Amino acid sequence: MEYIKNPMMIEDKSFEIIQGIIDEIRPGYEFKNEIEEKIIKRAIHTTADFEYLDILKISDTAVDMLVDALKNKATIFTDTNMALSGINKRKLSALGCEYKCLVADEDVAALAKEKGITRSMAAVEVAANTEGRKVFVLGNAPTALYKVMEMKNEGSLDLDAVVGVPVGFVGAEESKDELEKTEIPYIISKGRKGGSNLAAAIINAILYSM
Amino acid sequence: MEYIKNPMMIEDKSFEIIQGIIDEIRPGYEFKNEIEEKIIKRAIHTTADFEYLDILKISDTAVDMLVDALKNKATIFTDTNMALSGINKRKLSALGCEYKCLVADEDVAALAKEKGITRSMAAVEVAANTEGRKVFVLGNAPTALYKVMEMKNEGSLDLDAVVGVPVGFVGAEESKDELEKTEIPYIISKGRKGGSNLAAAIINAILYSM
Repeated sequence: MEYIKNPMMIEDKSFEIIQGIIDEIRPGYEFKNEIEEKIIKRAIHTTADFEYLDILKISDTAVDMLVDALKNKATIFTDTNMALSGINKRKLSALGCEYKCLVADEDVAALAKEKGITRSMAAVEVAANTEGRKVFVLGNAPTALYKVMEMKNEGSLDLDAVVGVPVGFVGAEESKDELEKTEIPYIISKGRKGGSNLAAAIINAILYSM
Repeated sequence: MEYIKNPMMIEDKSFEIIQGIIDEIRPGYEFKNEIEEKIIKRAIHTTADFEYLDILKISDTAVDMLVDALKNKATIFTDTNMALSGINKRKLSALGCEYKCLVADEDVAALAKEKGITRSMAAVEVAANTEGRKVFVLGNAPTALYKVMEMKNEGSLDLDAVVGVPVGFVGAEESKDELEKTEIPYIISKGRKGGSNLAAAIINAILYSM
């Protein structure tokens, strides 16, 4: 069986094919700018789902805020180990950024049990007490996204931006619609789609553009 | 903001909504059997993508082989840490199964460099030398899937089944089409779609049904 075995060739060829398909299915489609193009194409690369041409929404200041946070040793908080696995941690470390998924921490589990909330929500409370700049990368838990908005609103959480792409059928769509109404810089996927893989891909697209 | 915070309620409600949407978009749709229903619905739960009703294909013996392997302390080999993160490792451990993602191992990197192949391919070679029953769970690397087929064909790899759902634009679709032609018990996603999240969801659906 003949097949391409060089990883860099595979990636370059993939992005070429993606552009070819966009030309075919959406002739004349124009991305707002170069970074938005990179983010959306990487979302498609990760999912093979061209719906991201329409449903990925990036607020005006989101990319600048994310880049600035990443340049200033922000901590990236994810809601799943899966999202954390997918993020290029070598790049984050090179920038001096930290990264954490707190959901499985004992303290977080205890806090969740005590308060009768999800571990994802408790993880946001613990993250809020961390020093330094903060970015939330949420691909799974609408409850985490709601918690971020609540705490920001109460003034008990300081953050730079949210990649808010929870997937699912209960609260995912609604939580992202709410986020759009806030002042928090965001990247979201409208509707039900999203996921940990997508969340990681979005952060990686930004890291690769820096 | 009002939202459901109980994880079990969220999951039950999600599956109820998924069935409701299937009834709406595909009236009269019938799953082949209960386990296929569980696998496909969990795929949809993880991706919010109803295309999996049509593109998820399960070979006749795949589920029996996977269940038998899981009952007999098989090792699960994934092609990404992301897939491994998503798999319910508590359940695997309770069954006495092991799980490994070898792509980042030093031996694998050295072998890949020496042979001029991808690390995903080298990881399959190393896995083949492992004792005991084997299941491959591949959500990312067509090259790994091709390597599994090559080694099986040469008689140098003994395995029970493959969850073969690489996503992407170069080789993903073709590799899955090839797998369908082999004798290897498989679960695949036809076309370009798939992913590490999907790969994990499929194994979890089987674990939860046991």
